[in-house]
Amino acid sequence: MKRSAAKIVIAKNTGFCKGVKRAVQITERTLAENPGRNVYSLGPVIHNSEAMRKLSGLGLKVAKSVAGIPEGSVLILPSHGTPESVITVAAGKRLKLVDVTCPHVASVKRICRDLCARGRKVVIIGEAEHAEIKALKDSAPGCIIIENEEQVPEGLFTSGKIGIISQTTQSKDRFLGIVGVILKKNPLVKEVDICNTVCRDSAGRQEEAKKLAAQVELMLVIGSATSANTRRLAEIGASVNGNTHLVEKPAGNLADKVKGTRSIGVISGASTPSWLIEEVIGCIKENA
Amino acid sequence: MKRSAAKIVIAKNTGFCKGVKRAVQITERTLAENPGRNVYSLGPVIHNSEAMRKLSGLGLKVAKSVAGIPEGSVLILPSHGTPESVITVAAGKRLKLVDVTCPHVASVKRICRDLCARGRKVVIIGEAEHAEIKALKDSAPGCIIIENEEQVPEGLFTSGKIGIISQTTQSKDRFLGIVGVILKKNPLVKEVDICNTVCRDSAGRQEEAKKLAAQVELMLVIGSATSANTRRLAEIGASVNGNTHLVEKPAGNLADKVKGTRSIGVISGASTPSWLIEEVIGCIKENA
Repeated sequence: MKRSAAKIVIAKNTGFCKGVKRAVQITERTLAENPGRNVYSLGPVIHNSEAMRKLSGLGLKVAKSVAGIPEGSVLILPSHGTPESVITVAAGKRLKLVDVTCPHVASVKRICRDLCARGRKVVIIGEAEHAEIKALKDSAPGCIIIENEEQVPEGLFTSGKIGIISQTTQSKDRFLGIVGVILKKNPLVKEVDICNTVCRDSAGRQEEAKKLAAQVELMLVIGSATSANTRRLAEIGASVNGNTHLVEKPAGNLADKVKGTRSIGVISGASTPSWLIEEVIGCIKENA
Repeated sequence: MKRSAAKIVIAKNTGFCKGVKRAVQITERTLAENPGRNVYSLGPVIHNSEAMRKLSGLGLKVAKSVAGIPEGSVLILPSHGTPESVITVAAGKRLKLVDVTCPHVASVKRICRDLCARGRKVVIIGEAEHAEIKALKDSAPGCIIIENEEQVPEGLFTSGKIGIISQTTQSKDRFLGIVGVILKKNPLVKEVDICNTVCRDSAGRQEEAKKLAAQVELMLVIGSATSANTRRLAEIGASVNGNTHLVEKPAGNLADKVKGTRSIGVISGASTPSWLIEEVIGCIKENA
């Protein structure tokens, strides 16, 4: 391998976070312990297409809904959580359920239920269409999902009590920004419980992405576009350094991008496997 | 009386608020029911010098501390609350205590204690030297008082749980503004309970002051400079209309101020008696 001309700065926090690592390990063990049996996951176990390709190679089948899964199968409930109503349907079928929900996501679900029990209207700041939010929504009847500052309702909470939580992989700055707008637009609200449920791993990577992007000529965020936390890192990187790119794998125009660049920053989403990061870094070294 | 040339617009909410009315009525009754006995109040019962002058005329004596009050006296604990430690000292002396704390202020004290019991670090947004805050502080050990955005500590609450409350007579907009700065400067805080403890009467008068000040040539806020809610109204008025003045009584240069003015807005603090407002309005009509 030729010696790369570019300075490559790799973030401290790369590869799987604890929750993703645990989900993948349990899935691999489940596959190994059930040879010849149908092992399904309800949608992707984690949001990384390369890692999912590997699990599929080990025999995992991905189902879109519980309906199509044959009785007697093993069903893995993914890391980002499953709506309570779907778990009820799955439990009613002759399936062996293996829940690999990230413990942090599970704790946010408990916070959600607790806020409801204390009479708070729950406001979730996150992406309405993301699996985690769909799962959370199910445990907070009547909750409101807010994706951006423009969606903040005015006067809705007058004199009421509200509880605000965040998608675990939300950008921390955006979360607090939207909270500020909620308070400003609803000055008569009586009580607000704000739970900063952005996970520590996400928050840490976000800080690192911000610092790293400011130091380098080119910033690469390795992960899938379906991964919310990866997209956040790319957004944060781009807000500091216009030359920031999301890289799914060591292919496409990656070689062209890195060519002639003097300094490259590398970070990954929490669902990006280490071996993929190494492959991408190998490709960078070959071409930079 | 000559017909005034100026249009005088009087706010809907003027005169005593419920809490002040109750405090003054109980004080007057206590004085009437205890002829010949020493009746003291611990500092002013309410923050209006003219109203206090009237109560003094009925026999009320104002003490600076419990120490100087002779045994056997009646002691009125004022509307804006009394520190727990002072109540303990007073209770230990042979005094008859009459507590006229505003029910809303008393409920904020309960909120304060509840936040402490739930392990929250209490942050009070208000004036450190105001009697209400001194009383509140005493029921929230280790609390922090913040008067303005510059005083917001950075990183102090990292990963902690905090509860934010407001002085009951604080400007609602300033309260929410400071809350926003706290969140911005402490992005890692885990849980924030915000209790909007600005009292409804104060909030209502603030809204009215803002609207009225925008409509008139001259804005007059009747009340004492020692009254926090009166000062807030004057501040809010001045932020909209530079020609806003705090008027203590129908004297001084009031006649000069109103002379030749075409429209005058009048509002009062929550501790300003109606008879004083009528006297001021009389003076305006005579001179405008």
